[in-house]
Amino acid sequence: MKLIECIPNFSTSNPKHVNVIIGQIKQVGGVLLLDYTYDEYYNRLVVSFIGRTGSVVKAVLKAAGKAIELIDMNSHEGQHPRLGAVDVVPFIPIRNASIDDCVEAAREFGRSLANKHQVPVYLYGAAASKPERRDIDWIRRGEYEALARMIKKPERKPDFGEPKAHPTAGATITGARKIMAGFNVNLDTPNVKIAKKIARALHAQKGGFATVKAIGVEIPEKKITQIGMSITDFEKTPLYRILELIKLEAARYNVAIVDSEFCGMAPLTSLLDVAAYYLKIADLSEDRIMEIAVQKAIEKGEFGD
Amino acid sequence: MKLIECIPNFSTSNPKHVNVIIGQIKQVGGVLLLDYTYDEYYNRLVVSFIGRTGSVVKAVLKAAGKAIELIDMNSHEGQHPRLGAVDVVPFIPIRNASIDDCVEAAREFGRSLANKHQVPVYLYGAAASKPERRDIDWIRRGEYEALARMIKKPERKPDFGEPKAHPTAGATITGARKIMAGFNVNLDTPNVKIAKKIARALHAQKGGFATVKAIGVEIPEKKITQIGMSITDFEKTPLYRILELIKLEAARYNVAIVDSEFCGMAPLTSLLDVAAYYLKIADLSEDRIMEIAVQKAIEKGEFGD
Repeated sequence: MKLIECIPNFSTSNPKHVNVIIGQIKQVGGVLLLDYTYDEYYNRLVVSFIGRTGSVVKAVLKAAGKAIELIDMNSHEGQHPRLGAVDVVPFIPIRNASIDDCVEAAREFGRSLANKHQVPVYLYGAAASKPERRDIDWIRRGEYEALARMIKKPERKPDFGEPKAHPTAGATITGARKIMAGFNVNLDTPNVKIAKKIARALHAQKGGFATVKAIGVEIPEKKITQIGMSITDFEKTPLYRILELIKLEAARYNVAIVDSEFCGMAPLTSLLDVAAYYLKIADLSEDRIMEIAVQKAIEKGEFGD
Repeated sequence: MKLIECIPNFSTSNPKHVNVIIGQIKQVGGVLLLDYTYDEYYNRLVVSFIGRTGSVVKAVLKAAGKAIELIDMNSHEGQHPRLGAVDVVPFIPIRNASIDDCVEAAREFGRSLANKHQVPVYLYGAAASKPERRDIDWIRRGEYEALARMIKKPERKPDFGEPKAHPTAGATITGARKIMAGFNVNLDTPNVKIAKKIARALHAQKGGFATVKAIGVEIPEKKITQIGMSITDFEKTPLYRILELIKLEAARYNVAIVDSEFCGMAPLTSLLDVAAYYLKIADLSEDRIMEIAVQKAIEKGEFGD
């Protein structure tokens, strides 16, 4: 069975909007809603669900249609960069699916969204039509506020739809990428300068780890700060290394880690790497883990039907 | 599909014996050999395999028959306590099987072994016929050397077979228990007194953790020592707590941990606890881990057939 994941990011944290958008996904059969989180500071809703390609595209189109109807970007404020109401919609191979399957899904979603709702759509990641468009930050430069102007530039012509921002929903970015880990670490300081400094030490473009993007933000209701990270390859850059570097940098300011959390689902292999490191197990292969070995053997038919 | 595990412990580290014994298990269809390890210091072979009850009992009976034929306990020396050639044979529920299924398997194995090979058999753990026999150490008191004398005592009458030690194979202990973790931590000191002191600090009967048995031994070929542990309930006593206590006690002697290893298969949940502790994730439930959630959903038929 081929399964893909979709993680649409919508520019809202209004609980009523959230309910309606999530409701659209739940209505579609054959998809499993894994998770959704939203918060006012980012003013952003991140949803994660999986299924076969057809069901996944159908569900995200329905949810996106409602989001376009409900969200007005002209009054949107939030700490996370965004280009539109349906800001970014990545498709990710999960099981027996390839990245090309996900590129196909992104193209189908993008084409349909542009046709139905007159929202211009950019392809990014593995689905990008030009090298610079692989980078979501390049596409999102200037954010929603600059979109009406930027989209007129020839090099920024959208992949689907007319080069004209939707009056309330802006533009949408969709594409395909490998699974990544969203990981947030909370610091016991309200001083966002410290969080931002540590985030810079981690960030790929600032000399940090090549597979990490990091931002430092406030969580004012808890009087703490957070380092929000996305890690595009947690096999190359394991979580323990990131965590220990945060500890090291935080120690300069006598700041400690409060706790941490995955943003979305946790990839199992990223957790096994952490366990192996702290337990000092040189080689903890998945074949040596009971539940994983048993599952593989069942699938191979080792015990008969 | 009901699956159980069997972890027979044989009193040999002779590579020729090991090959013959393992060969017997491999010959039986429908069982999956997970692991086998043996070493001269313990002079012991520990095998782990899984399958449906019928196949598992068949395989361990064949292997035990060969071990009884090959091993002479009268010339056996080793650091691990032992009562016979086929020293202990636990059955463990792995998937959709209950502890009662494993008690049944142990009784079937014990009865057959006693009948075929005239080896007296004791039932232990959840299969024990009397409360004191739940404890393998009680059954094994005096080890092989005292068996001929001990077995005559009315309270030590075997559960299967005559109260008479087999002249070369001694006696066998079999039973049912929950899955446990075998976990060894290596210390960078050749001084076994230190390893033994730390092992005592961990051991349930010496004031340590209630679910841990620990011994300190030498690994002379590496000039290090090892704390060998079995943890009967790693949910109550997680590995990180054990590891950090070892570090704490070892620090008194300026001794560091070289590395650690699972003895046998690693239980997945024990690793997730470790990852969650060091990452400071308050609640890392299995439903939040991608691969596990996807597998459960497939089994539930969430995505159709």
